[in-house]
Amino acid sequence: MSRTAFFISDGTGITAETLGRSLLAQFETVDMNKITKPYIDTTDKAYALVQVIEATAIRDGSTPIIIDTIVDAAIRNIINQAPGFKVDIFSTFLAPLEQELATHSTYTVGRTHSIGQDEVYMDRIHSVHFALDNDDGARTHQYDKADVILIGVSRCGKTPTSLYLALQFGIRAANYPLTEDDQDEDGILKLPEVLAPYRHKLFGLTIDARRLAAIRSERRPNSRYCSMDQCLQEVQQAETLYRRLHIPHIDTTRFSIEEISTRMIAETGLSRRFSPH
Amino acid sequence: MSRTAFFISDGTGITAETLGRSLLAQFETVDMNKITKPYIDTTDKAYALVQVIEATAIRDGSTPIIIDTIVDAAIRNIINQAPGFKVDIFSTFLAPLEQELATHSTYTVGRTHSIGQDEVYMDRIHSVHFALDNDDGARTHQYDKADVILIGVSRCGKTPTSLYLALQFGIRAANYPLTEDDQDEDGILKLPEVLAPYRHKLFGLTIDARRLAAIRSERRPNSRYCSMDQCLQEVQQAETLYRRLHIPHIDTTRFSIEEISTRMIAETGLSRRFSPH
Repeated sequence: MSRTAFFISDGTGITAETLGRSLLAQFETVDMNKITKPYIDTTDKAYALVQVIEATAIRDGSTPIIIDTIVDAAIRNIINQAPGFKVDIFSTFLAPLEQELATHSTYTVGRTHSIGQDEVYMDRIHSVHFALDNDDGARTHQYDKADVILIGVSRCGKTPTSLYLALQFGIRAANYPLTEDDQDEDGILKLPEVLAPYRHKLFGLTIDARRLAAIRSERRPNSRYCSMDQCLQEVQQAETLYRRLHIPHIDTTRFSIEEISTRMIAETGLSRRFSPH
Repeated sequence: MSRTAFFISDGTGITAETLGRSLLAQFETVDMNKITKPYIDTTDKAYALVQVIEATAIRDGSTPIIIDTIVDAAIRNIINQAPGFKVDIFSTFLAPLEQELATHSTYTVGRTHSIGQDEVYMDRIHSVHFALDNDDGARTHQYDKADVILIGVSRCGKTPTSLYLALQFGIRAANYPLTEDDQDEDGILKLPEVLAPYRHKLFGLTIDARRLAAIRSERRPNSRYCSMDQCLQEVQQAETLYRRLHIPHIDTTRFSIEEISTRMIAETGLSRRFSPH
């Protein structure tokens, strides 16, 4: 028997989906199709969705799970006609919060985006372009404006992490690659000179050599660049450098980009320029 | 009287914070400090946090709001000693879900990240690099591999949207700028030739001319590029092009990047390669 979960919202669906996935992830033995239905903001769309849910219930031979953040009462009433096990986030928590805060909720759609959105938008644009302009050591003269400078070997995750920090938190993250060009005559990796004045802004990424070889071989198959020897040597040198200079660092191997980014923020006390959603 | 809300998690804090912000956004008259505390994954960290919450309660002269997704019972019990109004997401919803699904939850930390993480990571890396390689018309020979090609005037939001689509959903989004170079002899904007074979993949962004002028003037102040006349003319030409060729499009002016991206997906039926978190 298969089951389906619907994450339904009159806005982006991000809250319903984020919470829904977290809850359902606690039931790893249950095989669940997950469908996000954002922008259910008219009665017509709501009626059409009820039909989809009904058809799904019949096809699955089981009751769908419905996790929603619908605000409008008329739309909510329509959705409630669908066959389903309802996890009604807003009505569960808003009433007790209203009592605690001794005020009525405004209970409106997409409210999280409406305040200060202009500033957030500008900050995001700036931060994204900062990350792009300062990607992979392309420029180094703006490091005084960076909130953090990520360092690490090629393809250890610097670029996606920089961009995630920019988009989600408005953090200005430059990144600089550690390469053999920065080895001394004994073959020991040194801190690139251009980074020396910004020691306090450095954050190191490292990665399991095997994983690195797999990632690199998708880019340049059968090259020295992706060989296990080369990857192992580069990773060891980078980790030795971090330890020698007491540069905070994270092993990205088993972490998602969300985890790398939020751990970095937690460890370094980096401050966000804004908050997501 | 000021109040403080704590979003507490033993993982990234993304679920607690996303839900917490959505709930509190419904109380726009309440002035609330919001603090996210991720990775509260040891009893030591939990005791330290209780002290922070106690100090905050005294400083504020009001009860903090505590919204958490703590899974571990020992840590949860410690946090419950803190003075606060608790919004306990997991314990509220997991018991009814256990009954409905007729199984026990595994109730473990960060479970959402643990399955298929390797594939997701690779997909994200690929998608991010695809967006970067195909940013701003830099390359055009990979458009057969693009899931979508964003078009629009300079600084209407193409790059951040492409990157968000890549990071959050693994969607491969190229983007191509509409410029005066593509006007015909009568000064009418035409579809750039390189895009002609990919009409079905095109998605247009547009923006209020005033907003565009403000964004551009931060980049090149007092230029023709940022003048109101220029912005108005470019935007009108782009919008005329979208209507003439029936290219689906969105006005980004009042939307966040999350909204632009999720509306695009809802309107076009683009499919995600993976789901966030």
